[in-house]
Amino acid sequence: MSKYVYSFGGGTAEGDGTMKDSLGGKGAGLASMCRAGVPVPGGFTIITDVCNVFFDNDKKVPKEVDEQIWKALDQLEALMGKKLGDAADPLLLSVRSGAKFSMPGMMNTILNLGLNDKTTKGLSDKTGNPRFAYDCYRRFIQMFGEVAFGVEMEHFDHAFDTLKAKKKYKLDTEMTADDLKVIVEEFKKIFKKHAKRDFPQDAREQLLLSRNAVFMSWWAPKASYYRKMEKISDRLGTACNIQAMVFGNMGDTSATGVGFTRDPGSGEKVFYGEFLVNAQGEDVVAGIRTPSPISELKDWNADVYNQLRDITSKLELSYKDMQDFEFTVQEGVLWMLQTRNGKRTGPAAVRVAVDMVTEGLIDEKTAVMRVAPAQLDQLLHPVFDTASLKSLTKLATGIDASPGAAVGRLAFTSEDAVEMSAKSPVILIRKETTPDDIHGMDAAKGILTAVGGKSSHAAVVARGMGVPCVVGCGAISINERGKVATVKTADKTVTIKEGDWVSIDGATGGVYLGQAATKDPDPNSPVFAKFMKMADVFRGKFGVRANADIPRDAKAARAFGAEGIGLCRTEHMFFAEDRLPHVQAMILTDNVKDRTKALAKLLPMQRKDFAGLFEAMNGFPVVIRTLDPPLHEFVPKREELMVDLAKLPTADIKTKKEMLSRYKNFAPDVKSLKTVLPQLLARVEQLHEFNPMLGHRGCRLGITYPEITEMQARAIFEAVVQVAKKGKTVIPEVMIPLIGGVEELENQKKIVKAIAEEVLGKAGLKKQKYMIGTMIEIPRAALTADRVATEAEFFSFGTNDLTQTTMGLSRDDYTKFSKEYEEKKIFKNDPFGVIDREGVGKLIKLAVDLGRSTNPELEIGICGEHGGDPSSVEFCYQVGMDYVSCSPYRVPIARLAAAQAAIAKSEGSAEANRTA
Amino acid sequence: MSKYVYSFGGGTAEGDGTMKDSLGGKGAGLASMCRAGVPVPGGFTIITDVCNVFFDNDKKVPKEVDEQIWKALDQLEALMGKKLGDAADPLLLSVRSGAKFSMPGMMNTILNLGLNDKTTKGLSDKTGNPRFAYDCYRRFIQMFGEVAFGVEMEHFDHAFDTLKAKKKYKLDTEMTADDLKVIVEEFKKIFKKHAKRDFPQDAREQLLLSRNAVFMSWWAPKASYYRKMEKISDRLGTACNIQAMVFGNMGDTSATGVGFTRDPGSGEKVFYGEFLVNAQGEDVVAGIRTPSPISELKDWNADVYNQLRDITSKLELSYKDMQDFEFTVQEGVLWMLQTRNGKRTGPAAVRVAVDMVTEGLIDEKTAVMRVAPAQLDQLLHPVFDTASLKSLTKLATGIDASPGAAVGRLAFTSEDAVEMSAKSPVILIRKETTPDDIHGMDAAKGILTAVGGKSSHAAVVARGMGVPCVVGCGAISINERGKVATVKTADKTVTIKEGDWVSIDGATGGVYLGQAATKDPDPNSPVFAKFMKMADVFRGKFGVRANADIPRDAKAARAFGAEGIGLCRTEHMFFAEDRLPHVQAMILTDNVKDRTKALAKLLPMQRKDFAGLFEAMNGFPVVIRTLDPPLHEFVPKREELMVDLAKLPTADIKTKKEMLSRYKNFAPDVKSLKTVLPQLLARVEQLHEFNPMLGHRGCRLGITYPEITEMQARAIFEAVVQVAKKGKTVIPEVMIPLIGGVEELENQKKIVKAIAEEVLGKAGLKKQKYMIGTMIEIPRAALTADRVATEAEFFSFGTNDLTQTTMGLSRDDYTKFSKEYEEKKIFKNDPFGVIDREGVGKLIKLAVDLGRSTNPELEIGICGEHGGDPSSVEFCYQVGMDYVSCSPYRVPIARLAAAQAAIAKSEGSAEANRTA
Repeated sequence: MSKYVYSFGGGTAEGDGTMKDSLGGKGAGLASMCRAGVPVPGGFTIITDVCNVFFDNDKKVPKEVDEQIWKALDQLEALMGKKLGDAADPLLLSVRSGAKFSMPGMMNTILNLGLNDKTTKGLSDKTGNPRFAYDCYRRFIQMFGEVAFGVEMEHFDHAFDTLKAKKKYKLDTEMTADDLKVIVEEFKKIFKKHAKRDFPQDAREQLLLSRNAVFMSWWAPKASYYRKMEKISDRLGTACNIQAMVFGNMGDTSATGVGFTRDPGSGEKVFYGEFLVNAQGEDVVAGIRTPSPISELKDWNADVYNQLRDITSKLELSYKDMQDFEFTVQEGVLWMLQTRNGKRTGPAAVRVAVDMVTEGLIDEKTAVMRVAPAQLDQLLHPVFDTASLKSLTKLATGIDASPGAAVGRLAFTSEDAVEMSAKSPVILIRKETTPDDIHGMDAAKGILTAVGGKSSHAAVVARGMGVPCVVGCGAISINERGKVATVKTADKTVTIKEGDWVSIDGATGGVYLGQAATKDPDPNSPVFAKFMKMADVFRGKFGVRANADIPRDAKAARAFGAEGIGLCRTEHMFFAEDRLPHVQAMILTDNVKDRTKALAKLLPMQRKDFAGLFEAMNGFPVVIRTLDPPLHEFVPKREELMVDLAKLPTADIKTKKEMLSRYKNFAPDVKSLKTVLPQLLARVEQLHEFNPMLGHRGCRLGITYPEITEMQARAIFEAVVQVAKKGKTVIPEVMIPLIGGVEELENQKKIVKAIAEEVLGKAGLKKQKYMIGTMIEIPRAALTADRVATEAEFFSFGTNDLTQTTMGLSRDDYTKFSKEYEEKKIFKNDPFGVIDREGVGKLIKLAVDLGRSTNPELEIGICGEHGGDPSSVEFCYQVGMDYVSCSPYRVPIARLAAAQAAIAKSEGSAEANRTA
Repeated sequence: MSKYVYSFGGGTAEGDGTMKDSLGGKGAGLASMCRAGVPVPGGFTIITDVCNVFFDNDKKVPKEVDEQIWKALDQLEALMGKKLGDAADPLLLSVRSGAKFSMPGMMNTILNLGLNDKTTKGLSDKTGNPRFAYDCYRRFIQMFGEVAFGVEMEHFDHAFDTLKAKKKYKLDTEMTADDLKVIVEEFKKIFKKHAKRDFPQDAREQLLLSRNAVFMSWWAPKASYYRKMEKISDRLGTACNIQAMVFGNMGDTSATGVGFTRDPGSGEKVFYGEFLVNAQGEDVVAGIRTPSPISELKDWNADVYNQLRDITSKLELSYKDMQDFEFTVQEGVLWMLQTRNGKRTGPAAVRVAVDMVTEGLIDEKTAVMRVAPAQLDQLLHPVFDTASLKSLTKLATGIDASPGAAVGRLAFTSEDAVEMSAKSPVILIRKETTPDDIHGMDAAKGILTAVGGKSSHAAVVARGMGVPCVVGCGAISINERGKVATVKTADKTVTIKEGDWVSIDGATGGVYLGQAATKDPDPNSPVFAKFMKMADVFRGKFGVRANADIPRDAKAARAFGAEGIGLCRTEHMFFAEDRLPHVQAMILTDNVKDRTKALAKLLPMQRKDFAGLFEAMNGFPVVIRTLDPPLHEFVPKREELMVDLAKLPTADIKTKKEMLSRYKNFAPDVKSLKTVLPQLLARVEQLHEFNPMLGHRGCRLGITYPEITEMQARAIFEAVVQVAKKGKTVIPEVMIPLIGGVEELENQKKIVKAIAEEVLGKAGLKKQKYMIGTMIEIPRAALTADRVATEAEFFSFGTNDLTQTTMGLSRDDYTKFSKEYEEKKIFKNDPFGVIDREGVGKLIKLAVDLGRSTNPELEIGICGEHGGDPSSVEFCYQVGMDYVSCSPYRVPIARLAAAQAAIAKSEGSAEANRTA
């Protein structure tokens, strides 16, 4: 005869942990715990095959199954010393589904099975708590009615609410035992009316009906749909787990609690948790009574305490990970209800991993896989104190663009931010930021914008600076000139103005009114260093560089372990106050002579910047990109000029002075505005583009204005000479942006090479090595990468732009529909956050293979924002890149993600192996 | 002994036409003509091997070569009855290079060799024209000095100009024979000074030096560079052709002329040409004397005339193509100087091809290959009368965007264009056009814009309408509000204003001030129909459809032979005056209810449009694209609103009324502007995008506003029902634009399908067939085409957008640097005119292959503007598409290009086989 039912409990089990196919995940886990000697409330599992038989057999099960069930029940009653349906001291049961793969919340559960008119009275007497007993009973009728007979929840709710209203109660907890007795009678009537039979008083009948209901839920629409989504076979079926219920509220020798084998906040190896005497599990969570720290359990019942410590230590040893457990003490007897690997904060994850290696519990590879790279963010940025945050009004949720908690007073312009930052911390709030705002962003503790996504200017720059940032916060309407903003929250419209305190959480996108308390992390702790060292061993030769534009960021990058600079955006240096006038002069002229003159003024400044980067990166490569953005980014905005010009004829002196401050680089005085503004607008109109992203930028600038590339090349190589002569090792890599084919690279390479040879030759440094390469950020460049690689010494994938062009998606505009796209499952992830492997990834793979086919020596990396995203780092590793480059504050994350990718290479996907 | 020198002349030749390797192209041609009995001035060819020997042998040639040369010269002297260096009647020679492949203008030529102090006098006496003789001599000294001794041209020019200035002559022709004698003496001095030897008086020495100079020019920098570009081997070497010179100015028995075997303008089979008695070839071209029609040659010398007719007829028979020939009669003897396949106009090309088939001269395949598809344009559009055009001031040259000649008065706004067109033809001049301008473009005879390229809105729409159009005319600064424009020409600034007459040539990009005369073509001539019928036989199943949005265009498309509509842009119907308010209401509302209400008003209008298309295309497929452009195209411009809002507080009543006319769909009266404008601006700001090309458009609209797709699907299928019930055959294909992956198509397909089933079901037309497919216009869609094809029943490549995204190039902005890119050879062609095969083409090929891999039944076409470009049509044929679709007026061009592609498939590239 086949075995359909497997018992467990009393320190043993018929099944074991390997039998997930027949016992399901939950059943196998219970068997495993019992075999490990953990005191689990006893029970039995009806195997998954029965579920299939049930459906194949017109929703009936063979007689042998029922026979095996009654036999297992007999055993269970003996083990628990209680009998199902015993009016004096009833055994109560839970009936739960449990398939091979977890399908959380998709199928049914019935609790408190065994209650009827008589046993409820027995439970009431036994616990001395009639309110509890009748509340259990009415809940059971409702759950059973709904699950086993399809009685709609609302009928029960209506009856309950009617009585509550009649009694004028506000809370469910105001219901007395007598009220609940009335409800029980009502519920039985409702059951009868809709189920068309009396509520079954026979506990064994209850059991068989519940078992069938659990099987039926395998084909509930939501469960079918979930299986289809997750590609789980319909033929697996679900097991059915029947288990004795235990109660921590059976008097003063009973208790209930939760705990961790280590501190989930810090990772420290301390016994951590809390408990309540004479209480149910939900009381601990509900917060009505204050639980006691678990250390006090010792005073209440030393035996139980010692047993619990002993069991949980063994569990940790057995599962080789920190355990999160629930327990109940019923009349002096300890029962473990659940144990699982515990969720933990980033710092705890790192500490637990490192400690467990020291303790010999896990090896280094396991330790490295135990920490989700994103968790490291918490070690690198301040975080909010959760309690403190709860007391504030939440204004809105935007897009989490740069992690960390920031508190400050609102500033509406970059100028204000700089000024106000002298006196107090500042949050810069803008509709969007532009390169003009760099100084304000630099002065601010946090940045908040109304538009833009994870790759918007604000997001990219903030991450580079390590400044917390929330973008795309569409609920906020900003009046920048009025220095005021309004926010529609769920229940009211809030106005916020300059100087108001706000708190923003760059890790969640939360924006709060008021000052929350923050906690500072310690990124330089020895345990963190030890962990990263372990990770780096697995990472091997795969490099991690940082995107940094100025020496300060380069130094930060080195501190975080960056092995070079993967992207220096030269234009970020163009916005400094002493440079902008020269940049503007260069742009606004229409002849080469004046442009060359303006460039000559910029040259020494650029040279100084580059020298600073080379010094900071002594011995590591520095990739410098030539000018990239469209020129109109450096001049006043077209529409602002149009409006000012329209207003000028009727403007009063104050308005004119305001205007003058905007155009101070162009107009000497108020009077001159009349002639300057139209000229300026005319030139700005010439520079105007319908789609600047696809316009006159990148190498297209260097090709039409070769003198710009010449100046930049000269600045780079003069800086090389300067630093090399100090005895430092300089490894410059000059990167040409936005090429579409080899012809553009050839053009620019020729210019750079000529200057390099000239400058190095003159300095007697002919042997100084340097590379000239290109960004791959336009599909055409990727598609023709075999030809490009004949001229390029390196490729660096600019995945921001490559994603924009490959998907035809503007990173500045897509937030208008991206949420809907994510809801409708058109985007699996934000494509600017995680590389779209199917489309963009395919193109990257193609380009890597084409490039290496004609130039096997080609160095290949990525410098788009994806370089700091763990899943994307894994992808870059998989397609065979040499390195990733990301913002300095994400360097540790990338190092860890790369290590995990290396480990996963032989063991499947890194993501699947992570615990958190 | 090897043979190095091959003689020709006197009705025979040692070489023949097959010996291009050794005789070079020119030498082989001369041999071939001689063998055909054509009276060619005699001469000899020194073979290409000698050139290699010359360079291998320190720039010397073996003695045998010289010996063979002198022998050949003896023969030549006998043949021509003159001797080299004979003071009384000198033989003069030309010395020309001639490699296997034509390298036009890359190598050297020396004419009039044999002149010296004595022979010049002889020539002078013989011709009775000392001015001619001394002019020949001074030219020879100069040419020989420059080519053989590297004496710089400027030294000779300086001496010539000095004398000219001294004599106060304006023209070179004012120089007298005596002046030229002075010049000859001067030139000899210059020669001596720079060549460091006397000018050689010995004609044989002149010959050897000239031969060496011709060989030397094989390695001239421009020739080397040309070979590198054209991938011609350096080892081929050049032959050297030495030929007797003949003169048509040796008195009244001499003459010179040019002609064609058929009329190159009309193709008519008439002997066509002109001649001058006692003249040189250049006199015919220079236009100082008026030549006589070639028919009069008969009266002058009947023998010569008959001989010429006879020879040229034979030449046409031999070359099987219309010949363009040059001849000279020297002292009563006819010499043919050149014959080649003649260039011809489009109408002539068609007529000659058709006639030659009728005459049995060529087969149909050859006839089809003889006409360049682009030549058909001249048969489909009016052209300017060239003489008439010459009398006008040329204002500027823009980009030739839609062919045809147009003459009209300038209108600066679409409203003005409509109004003015009632009284006179109109040219609409705009900075750029937008969909708002459709009615103005429709009313205009021609369109002229200052910005944009071949794929700009103006260009695309104009081609669709068949209206001549010039775009990107940057030299014109337009003040639209002032209704005036200024143009900087080479020498002055011209102001043009409303009502001024201009003429624009859409085939050349020329813009002229004034009224030029135009000639109308006859596209319905029997000869054209016959030609297209021949072409269609070769085209086979490969289809040609048209892009058409309204029934009128659909009818035109049918008349041009379109086999269906490949693209109907539904949004073009949205701009009609009766619809725009509903479209705007739909866009400006923030709730589904109002949007649905506005859409309900549009439904019957769209249904009517579609029904019209289906009727016109009875039995042919109609591809209808759902809404594509960003919504802000339908509402007032943001910056215009900002300016108006800024002006409003201080505006006078006239300005306010002007504003009201702009916002009449939103504001009922002047007073309401104060409240309406800020609201309108707020919504327009929400719709504003930084890169609209990559923004919220295409299927992204239908996904976020499913009710728009629903309305359009309903209009389509209700129209299907309406037309099908009339007994017509309707073949609807619904096309979803701008998808990036299969998920978007799934979403929209579901909506369309549900409506289709409902509407067709209700009408009892369940068997009515229809297809749902998608545009491939985003790289990601191409990269994932295998998955897309599982849902798509057809693909249509939108190569405009696919080029924009694949190349990262905005078609609205790229003209700022495209000219520079073409000059620097970064763009081989305008990528919006000709498919970029290397990049975009690779992606198309990939998508075709991926798509067919999962869906072999997939119908594949192209509906981008490239569908009407011959090279692109060839590409589409090669990658295996089923059809191309283009603007109606390009349908014949596409039909011919497709036929040529089909022919070329087994015979190499179509382009290489074309004559014109």
